[in-house]
Amino acid sequence: MEENGTKCPPSEAGNGSLVFAVNGEKFELATLDPSTTLLQFFRYHTRFKSVKLGCGEGGCGACVVMLSKYNPELDQVEDFSVSSCLTLLCSVNGCSITTSEGLGNSKDGFHPIHQRFAGFHASQCGYCTPGMCMSFFSALAKAEKTNRPEPPPGFSKLTVSEAEKAIAGNLCRCTGYRPIADACKSFAADVDLEDLGLNSFWRKGEPKEVKLSRLPLYTPDGRFSRFPEFLKGRSKSPKSLHLENSSWYTPTTLEELRSLLNSNLIENDKLRLVVGNTGMGYYKELDNYDRYIDLRYLSELQTIRRNHHGIEIGAAVTISKVIACLKDADTLNYSTDGKQVFEKLANHMEKIASGFIRNSASIGGNLVMAQRKSFPSDIATILLAVGSIVSITTGHKHESITLEEFLTRPPMDSRSVLLSVQIPHLEPKGNGNNSGSNSKLVFETYRAAPRPLGNALPYLNAAFLADVSHQVSGVLVNNIQLVFGAYGTKHATRARKVEEYLSGRMLSASVLYEAVKLVKVDVMPAVGTSHAAYRTSLAIGFLFQFLSPFLRVGSVACGGLSNGLTGDLLKDSLENHRDTSLCQWEYSKLLLSAKQELKSSKEYHPVGEPITKSGAAIQASGEAVYVDDIPSPPNCLHGAFIYSTKPLARVKGVDLESNNQLSGVAALISYKDIPEQGENVGSKAMFGSEPLFADDLTRCAGQQIAFVVANTQKFADIAANSALVKYDTANLDPPILTIEEAVERSSFFQVPPFLYPKQVGDFSKGMAEADHKILSAEIKLPSQYYFYMETQTALAVPDEDNCMVVYSSIQCPELTHSVIATCLGVPEHNIRVITRRVGGGFGGKAIKAMPVSINNIKIKFFSH
Amino acid sequence: MEENGTKCPPSEAGNGSLVFAVNGEKFELATLDPSTTLLQFFRYHTRFKSVKLGCGEGGCGACVVMLSKYNPELDQVEDFSVSSCLTLLCSVNGCSITTSEGLGNSKDGFHPIHQRFAGFHASQCGYCTPGMCMSFFSALAKAEKTNRPEPPPGFSKLTVSEAEKAIAGNLCRCTGYRPIADACKSFAADVDLEDLGLNSFWRKGEPKEVKLSRLPLYTPDGRFSRFPEFLKGRSKSPKSLHLENSSWYTPTTLEELRSLLNSNLIENDKLRLVVGNTGMGYYKELDNYDRYIDLRYLSELQTIRRNHHGIEIGAAVTISKVIACLKDADTLNYSTDGKQVFEKLANHMEKIASGFIRNSASIGGNLVMAQRKSFPSDIATILLAVGSIVSITTGHKHESITLEEFLTRPPMDSRSVLLSVQIPHLEPKGNGNNSGSNSKLVFETYRAAPRPLGNALPYLNAAFLADVSHQVSGVLVNNIQLVFGAYGTKHATRARKVEEYLSGRMLSASVLYEAVKLVKVDVMPAVGTSHAAYRTSLAIGFLFQFLSPFLRVGSVACGGLSNGLTGDLLKDSLENHRDTSLCQWEYSKLLLSAKQELKSSKEYHPVGEPITKSGAAIQASGEAVYVDDIPSPPNCLHGAFIYSTKPLARVKGVDLESNNQLSGVAALISYKDIPEQGENVGSKAMFGSEPLFADDLTRCAGQQIAFVVANTQKFADIAANSALVKYDTANLDPPILTIEEAVERSSFFQVPPFLYPKQVGDFSKGMAEADHKILSAEIKLPSQYYFYMETQTALAVPDEDNCMVVYSSIQCPELTHSVIATCLGVPEHNIRVITRRVGGGFGGKAIKAMPVSINNIKIKFFSH
Repeated sequence: MEENGTKCPPSEAGNGSLVFAVNGEKFELATLDPSTTLLQFFRYHTRFKSVKLGCGEGGCGACVVMLSKYNPELDQVEDFSVSSCLTLLCSVNGCSITTSEGLGNSKDGFHPIHQRFAGFHASQCGYCTPGMCMSFFSALAKAEKTNRPEPPPGFSKLTVSEAEKAIAGNLCRCTGYRPIADACKSFAADVDLEDLGLNSFWRKGEPKEVKLSRLPLYTPDGRFSRFPEFLKGRSKSPKSLHLENSSWYTPTTLEELRSLLNSNLIENDKLRLVVGNTGMGYYKELDNYDRYIDLRYLSELQTIRRNHHGIEIGAAVTISKVIACLKDADTLNYSTDGKQVFEKLANHMEKIASGFIRNSASIGGNLVMAQRKSFPSDIATILLAVGSIVSITTGHKHESITLEEFLTRPPMDSRSVLLSVQIPHLEPKGNGNNSGSNSKLVFETYRAAPRPLGNALPYLNAAFLADVSHQVSGVLVNNIQLVFGAYGTKHATRARKVEEYLSGRMLSASVLYEAVKLVKVDVMPAVGTSHAAYRTSLAIGFLFQFLSPFLRVGSVACGGLSNGLTGDLLKDSLENHRDTSLCQWEYSKLLLSAKQELKSSKEYHPVGEPITKSGAAIQASGEAVYVDDIPSPPNCLHGAFIYSTKPLARVKGVDLESNNQLSGVAALISYKDIPEQGENVGSKAMFGSEPLFADDLTRCAGQQIAFVVANTQKFADIAANSALVKYDTANLDPPILTIEEAVERSSFFQVPPFLYPKQVGDFSKGMAEADHKILSAEIKLPSQYYFYMETQTALAVPDEDNCMVVYSSIQCPELTHSVIATCLGVPEHNIRVITRRVGGGFGGKAIKAMPVSINNIKIKFFSH
Repeated sequence: MEENGTKCPPSEAGNGSLVFAVNGEKFELATLDPSTTLLQFFRYHTRFKSVKLGCGEGGCGACVVMLSKYNPELDQVEDFSVSSCLTLLCSVNGCSITTSEGLGNSKDGFHPIHQRFAGFHASQCGYCTPGMCMSFFSALAKAEKTNRPEPPPGFSKLTVSEAEKAIAGNLCRCTGYRPIADACKSFAADVDLEDLGLNSFWRKGEPKEVKLSRLPLYTPDGRFSRFPEFLKGRSKSPKSLHLENSSWYTPTTLEELRSLLNSNLIENDKLRLVVGNTGMGYYKELDNYDRYIDLRYLSELQTIRRNHHGIEIGAAVTISKVIACLKDADTLNYSTDGKQVFEKLANHMEKIASGFIRNSASIGGNLVMAQRKSFPSDIATILLAVGSIVSITTGHKHESITLEEFLTRPPMDSRSVLLSVQIPHLEPKGNGNNSGSNSKLVFETYRAAPRPLGNALPYLNAAFLADVSHQVSGVLVNNIQLVFGAYGTKHATRARKVEEYLSGRMLSASVLYEAVKLVKVDVMPAVGTSHAAYRTSLAIGFLFQFLSPFLRVGSVACGGLSNGLTGDLLKDSLENHRDTSLCQWEYSKLLLSAKQELKSSKEYHPVGEPITKSGAAIQASGEAVYVDDIPSPPNCLHGAFIYSTKPLARVKGVDLESNNQLSGVAALISYKDIPEQGENVGSKAMFGSEPLFADDLTRCAGQQIAFVVANTQKFADIAANSALVKYDTANLDPPILTIEEAVERSSFFQVPPFLYPKQVGDFSKGMAEADHKILSAEIKLPSQYYFYMETQTALAVPDEDNCMVVYSSIQCPELTHSVIATCLGVPEHNIRVITRRVGGGFGGKAIKAMPVSINNIKIKFFSH
């Protein structure tokens, strides 16, 4: 008798147990593994399968839900989106969670968000759609709580700009986003309906009133702001979480925290301090922790204090709240320069991760990751530039040190806790002689990343703070702090040589040129960092962008503006600094404008009509069943591949790490387990078949070597990730890694004759007659990977008489069927492959999904 | 998050946990509900679904498995069949269990039993087949352990007679048993293969060697007598069962037992003393017990002592062992008469229940049920006739009383325990004057029941013991004990008036006539007993049968024999008593001989050929999947109907008993829950449709009133059985219960025109010309019920977009499909009904299975 997943039987006592609501329904758990995430809970223990597993690291948004917290003092409910793959279940104690099924569904009626997503063709494979809906709904809920004027009937208080940003961080691979943005924008009070794309509601050119009447009606009925009453009392004492047989501590005083950290109990166990747990998105949890200490109930870590010296922010405050606080800074009597610094810090922080991550990630967590693990933090970079101070407690020792010292120290030990960070209120000081009156503070932050918004780590980030004075001869740098980070460095660092060189100098082209040369020395990516030259050139570019407006000489070309810094125009030059933000991405209008003109012919009616995709609404509500949404049968086993890390090596053996965590491992399957009458075949396609497993020799990196089977997916993943494969490359030729090597060693794949190139026309004649000749050419095609939202997955259910039903997310079930039968050596009629819908494939669910299907069968044969 | 069924997580400690083996595989449970049966364990928690639920009361044999116990002192393994529906899981601690899958299967190869069942066409619907195989295999295993001479190759030590008896108690509704008996007999050393019926192995008339070579080879490889080594050590201390959160006590001394019985702990709880738990087959467990005391480890209750005074048998000794002991009595120096008494007691006991019940039921349990609950016991009757004594302990009080006194006392209290029963060694005593030398003991037992063997309670049983002497004038009754039981009486009783009348009398026709008249007074079924006159006449017949051989006058007609009791032929008359057993069923040859001659025509070849039914072997091994074998999805709810007990009444309400046991109840569904767009329709057939639920008025007894839904089937059943329906019949006409009443009140069903009777020929002319006239005639057709082995069952699995997949054991899925859609008010394409095989139907799975399918859907809609 096996147990699947986390046991969560309801407790009768209710005292100290974990209580929360999902879509208004009460859940109460007396015992659970504290490493269980909200996503795991939804997927393994509830019927709310709208919460999808995509990346599992907060990077795709497929698992986004809305979390609501009740503040009993203010009698207020706070609603925000979170990524449930990173949210630990214990941390939702007393909270209410809304999933897409909770917004509406096929039984109770769909929510207009679902209906509009369907009508705007915003759901294709549909796997990202429920998460999109929840990100957008959270934004809608937030907007509706503002004091903005009442929108026209049928619209919300949300703006088009907010609608666009609401889904930043939610990835979609099918639609190209425009239909999704259109569906979201249709709710915005300031939308021009005519701008929205093809949909099944109206035809281009119909009057606005008609269009509006055709849209599924939106009325903010407040249904989801009603926090369940049964949780309200509970919210008063959220700390009282005492689970059976597990350890989730919620200290409320520093003394409690210290005694926990000092206890011998903890010394011997694997301990994790958590706030939002979002760090797990970047640093994979390959092992279980024994004990968790939730820092969110320590008032010291949650408090924000503002005074004339600056803002002190508790380490557990979420980045979203930090942003709100920094933007709100102008309510205090801060200097203009100081307020601008706070605002720019906030603007920069809005580019970090995504909304649903910033809603749970803490500022302290970010800085501690930067300190302990060299996380490429933006926050460390920008806060370092403004001279922030951090407070740390270690046992009974309490100290305040500069962020710079903090970052350069050896990694904090496990008993040290970051308490708060103080961001100073800055004012111009000038140099010693010329104290402040004529000087100005200039502050800018920079960031270059693959995407402007939405979960993209930077290639380089930077923040520059300069105290400058206008002199007759130009601009004098009284003081300057130049911080660069994330470029392949242990932590954000001040470019001291450049700072020293610039301080006290009048800016000129030659000074700037010298500074740039120094930057090349100071900003030097560590050996092995990707795009090293690009990163250094970015650093130069950013510095140039920062300093060039101060140059007297010539004009500053930026965004088509031409401004000279002459005479007393320093003030203008500082204004320009704000204008230069135009050079960067313009965030207020995220999407470029475009027009789609589709002429539909009546000839093949209704072909060409914008008819709503069948099932689009249930895809949006999350009721559409993907393979992994099929409830696991009792005693279901789960598997994970162990892939080769060597391109060519003998596999001498695979060792699973033996520890308690792996007690759930049931078997390790390799090519030796292929049935006698079967074949080691994992896929078949036009280029022939590929083996299911490497035999004694692995022939490429990434080849499947073995398959770990365990009673939960978590155990299977942990076991596969921690498995040790013993390789031996003695007496083997080096692997062939390039086309050139393959040609040199005459190693070619067989190309099927139908793919032989055929000459079309007379190539030599054509080239001879051409106006432009190709004198020399080389084309290199880099590797490419399939990127689908739904992971590879298959479920095999044994049936009588050695038959097997395989639910597979696959694009070619017919080949899979045959491959499975061949591999197992059973007649093809014993195998039934069922594919209903695929959560994105792009070719990757064609051939590469076959081994997954086969191995799931093998599990079932094993478990049966 | 709900928990299905009994939680049985494996314990790491292993100490005190329940350990046993199934088909060689180790199972270890640290915690379980002690009321869990072996059947529930197999069906809810393992993949061994060959163990079927048929009657759930030990009456059908569908759940029979082989239990093996190891005796460490003798290093011997005892194998025997048990009914797993009555066997409590806690009682198999240290045992090894073999199911039909364990004998063989489609992966490891089938057992020759499976193959021969298939080839002899012994599996039709297949639901009884695994149980049949296990009953037969247990008999085979037992025979192979005897010291009989080695059988010819391919055969076993089993005899044809044993083969036939092996499956007594296993019901089959399809085959008529002959093919099953043929398959079993094919293993018997003394079989004549030519006698076996149509099969797919050979043709009639082929030489014996050819036939034998065609049979799947049987070799006693001893695979199943290998008791798992890991259990052997454990068998030494089977008492050490300490389950978490539950109470199963295994006292080993009377002192321990007494202190358990005296503890306050127990006073407040529901306590159950158990040995084999087979009483549950007759007395349904409508509630859970809190505590169980297993009496099997008390040596006082397990010991058999034999001396010249008789045999003392511990109360916990199984009936099978009592039979073996009584048959083995001739090894002691008992008198001929005494030995015959023991042998006849044993012969009678072999007719009780069935082999797999006698293997676990205890003699003490049987007597206690007779004492406490007026169970119609055969054992009480026959032991009463021979003057047995019982020993009882109550607290520290220990007493020995006659069985007669025991039976007539008020029901034993819960602290009293029956320890043993002493069956005296009887010898003729004559009367006072003529002490013994010329007298003889005559003992006979009688039983009339619907079936001669296999789980049929008697209409009447009787046992007569007479001490008679030969006199010149005839036969003198010195002393006589006449016991009748089970005829509608509280307990077996001596017919004192008849005994007194007969004692000291010479037997004559007039004496016998007087005795018979007295029997009519003494054997008077209680008011309300069915077949009262038949029972009394049986009593008379049995007495006549017993006494008539002693009559001087005339001849005794019996089995065609004509014998006079003249002169010193008393001895012969006593011999005749043995011959009279011919009047009863002849048990040594259970089946009558018959010949099947089937001529197959080649014209439609292969039609008419005895081809093995597809799937017969997996039906035998139990791998064939019936609806209830489909593993329940996670969080599956289970339901049970509440039926009307009134033919015509207003239903004012349904109350579920509120107690802790019912914490698993999720909902009570009635006609009020029919969806608004649906209809209250439960079935459709040629006579129109019937409602799913009674509305405010129930229109026949047995009509569905409501459906209880709970998280386990057990909770649903308990809740449905204990539900209180409030009826009101005020101002209602009396119900119509007979055709006559219906005619009188002109209440007719509409008969569809196509069923109107059509006159064929000239009825009046035919009657006028007939040789024999029908002067008056009346035909009454009593009610009839469908008897199928597989219970009504359906599994509904919700699918996306309000669709539902219903796995139903139904004979007409097409109508069911339409009824479900109509009832729920959804389009027919939303419903998919899947029927793969039906475990017997006989019409009962046509219409009557529909409401079951519908309600299972309603559960799912509820739970989804």
